[in-house]
Amino acid sequence: MSNTIGPDTKTWVEVPTNSDFTIHNLPFGIFSQSGKSKRAGIAIGNKVVDLAALYDAGLIDKNAYKKEHFECEVLNPFMKLGKQATSKLRIRIAELLESTNSELRSLPNISDILIDQSAVTMHLPVSVGDYTDFYSSEDHARNVGTMFRDPNNALLPNWKHIPVGYHGRSSSIVISGTPIHRPKGQQKPKDADQPVFGPCKLLDFELEMAFVTFDGKPMGQSISTAEAEDYIFGMVIFNDWSARDIQTWEYVPLGPFLAKNFASSISPWIVTMDALSEYKVAGAKQEPKVFPYLDYDGDKNIDINLEVAIEPEGSAETVVSRSNYRYMYWNYAQQLAHHTINGCPIKAGDMMASGTISGPEPSSYGSMLELSWRGTKPIKMNDGSERKFIQDNDTVIMRAFAEKNGIRIGFGEVRSKLLPAL
Amino acid sequence: MSNTIGPDTKTWVEVPTNSDFTIHNLPFGIFSQSGKSKRAGIAIGNKVVDLAALYDAGLIDKNAYKKEHFECEVLNPFMKLGKQATSKLRIRIAELLESTNSELRSLPNISDILIDQSAVTMHLPVSVGDYTDFYSSEDHARNVGTMFRDPNNALLPNWKHIPVGYHGRSSSIVISGTPIHRPKGQQKPKDADQPVFGPCKLLDFELEMAFVTFDGKPMGQSISTAEAEDYIFGMVIFNDWSARDIQTWEYVPLGPFLAKNFASSISPWIVTMDALSEYKVAGAKQEPKVFPYLDYDGDKNIDINLEVAIEPEGSAETVVSRSNYRYMYWNYAQQLAHHTINGCPIKAGDMMASGTISGPEPSSYGSMLELSWRGTKPIKMNDGSERKFIQDNDTVIMRAFAEKNGIRIGFGEVRSKLLPAL
Repeated sequence: MSNTIGPDTKTWVEVPTNSDFTIHNLPFGIFSQSGKSKRAGIAIGNKVVDLAALYDAGLIDKNAYKKEHFECEVLNPFMKLGKQATSKLRIRIAELLESTNSELRSLPNISDILIDQSAVTMHLPVSVGDYTDFYSSEDHARNVGTMFRDPNNALLPNWKHIPVGYHGRSSSIVISGTPIHRPKGQQKPKDADQPVFGPCKLLDFELEMAFVTFDGKPMGQSISTAEAEDYIFGMVIFNDWSARDIQTWEYVPLGPFLAKNFASSISPWIVTMDALSEYKVAGAKQEPKVFPYLDYDGDKNIDINLEVAIEPEGSAETVVSRSNYRYMYWNYAQQLAHHTINGCPIKAGDMMASGTISGPEPSSYGSMLELSWRGTKPIKMNDGSERKFIQDNDTVIMRAFAEKNGIRIGFGEVRSKLLPAL
Repeated sequence: MSNTIGPDTKTWVEVPTNSDFTIHNLPFGIFSQSGKSKRAGIAIGNKVVDLAALYDAGLIDKNAYKKEHFECEVLNPFMKLGKQATSKLRIRIAELLESTNSELRSLPNISDILIDQSAVTMHLPVSVGDYTDFYSSEDHARNVGTMFRDPNNALLPNWKHIPVGYHGRSSSIVISGTPIHRPKGQQKPKDADQPVFGPCKLLDFELEMAFVTFDGKPMGQSISTAEAEDYIFGMVIFNDWSARDIQTWEYVPLGPFLAKNFASSISPWIVTMDALSEYKVAGAKQEPKVFPYLDYDGDKNIDINLEVAIEPEGSAETVVSRSNYRYMYWNYAQQLAHHTINGCPIKAGDMMASGTISGPEPSSYGSMLELSWRGTKPIKMNDGSERKFIQDNDTVIMRAFAEKNGIRIGFGEVRSKLLPAL
């Protein structure tokens, strides 16, 4: 069975030009509408396919799936079915939406199954068991190393041997649209003897992509780079909010903690690895040669266009960065192989973020820290104001899409407003 | 209502001398016996009270609790009821077990409710949402700083201002009795140019205690040191397995990752904060003065005796460390207040470990790294062998108990065998 939806496939659903949610995408999410419980949905054009309603209509195989896979708070129970079952379900939905198919189209209650996206509220698609953040963009690591350490030795000695990563906080991962409060914490002003306490002054975003896993192997066993894709459901856009001044004071020797765990924001739709498979590209040549467990065959980078915009209160947005997921030095397969090489078990719903994705050009840097070069080069906004970091009441918007041969697969956006400290 | 069980309380259940599970303890766990689903239990002497069976027998208030709080895979749904409800349930069990009470004792099917511990299997008591590890023992931090950095500046500048902590991995937290495989990973031998890959050579335990939280406040809000206990259910013994050679190579700049996330082992019974309330003692004087959000009133350290033993394959165990939870510089209330000062939300079932608990004497150090002083002072075992770190097929056992005025409250043990690398 093929898990891809052929390039010539058309749908009977109206899909606006430049929609992220073409028939070739069909991402999964969790939505609700007034008076009804949460359920799983698939996006197409400006609509959501209510999978629970589709199940009730008898258009999903009741031998392979249960109602509670779709009438559910989160996608985890569905994802526990594994790659084959989730891929097969998506292909079945593509079949139902295909131009010549009338099974769904002809149903009298179709308006209960195909719902306007504008009428629903999106929720966190998964309960995140464990969240890991990598540090896998070479340009980002070089920029940070240049600013804070030594421009001539910007990369630390382990960086080209290890896809460096650390554990983050699952409980503060929130869905697009959730406002974030500026965090309070300790900071040590430059040249001060003692730390001070108060609202973070250097609040930043980090432009990242995150992949969501299936259940892995039993504890103690590893997942190879060749197997990695069998254990990854799909991806979301990930804004790893960062409090730079809190981070600088706290992070030695055990890594970032309160500087990161106050909030991370994700886009609502999980775009499947199946959908992204057509957009693979080669990654950077890795020199020195990596250990065999990190070696891989084929293309494991993905050409996904990324952008970040800042929308000041009451003004139009300004795009401040355009980057691409293809810039990753360490790819998702290497990240997952590294994460499990010691036998660390993964579960359905775990989330692994890329780390800030910066490209080689200053306009493609993935954080204000880099874009404003530590505050020394303020960014001009369309409304005439300037930004070194994020100000109270700014809204940060990240968007992502892949496009090739006129076929577009998008992630929608993650949009979050920064509120003042409580 | 008092949440403590008076010192003169006696029980009709036979409790062996030196039992950890006296009428004053009554810790919660999850157990199973052949042919039955998992359920919540309370330990008393060598018995387990089956709370689901007790519920069916009509001895638990059906207006306040539901069957699914006790017939359950994990304690999280019960803990979601919060402090008052869990405290009240424990006091009710104490009432039923009290010498003069015959409600339970006189039931014809009492053998279905009061079960031999030897007949049950214990399971992870909670689904751990997020796991955090602190670094709060001054002696431990000084020892590590002395060994790896500068004996004259052993503590980093932030250490006495911040209860330093980092996020760990929830998915690899396992119950006592679960064998652990020696992890593989990258290490960089001293003076080598390049890293090597293979089984960890310097495998270590870390003697820790961990507290388990209730649901906290909404995201964005903080929990004060005065409120902390309202959000903590109880504690377990925590063995934070550590691969020292993997850690040294990977941990700069983002902290420990694969060196820790292959396994952490916990004791099966959650001893409640209510039970521990009689064992509070004063902590160290904190100088410099801490920020107001870290200040606290009353005693927040706890006098819990700790010990670690190593049992070589086929030999009797040797106790290698005797420490105490009272040695913490940063107490649990300060840890929780710090963790939430930036608005980071906590959930029922989150686990926060103390960090290695070393005391001032070499015999009270909480890791082999310190006990063998980085391998320079091998530890003599009773069978004549020596240990610098943990060897394949060694079993590591940690025990903990509080005792005052002849009343003992214990944690049982966490016992884990180290198997060779896969």
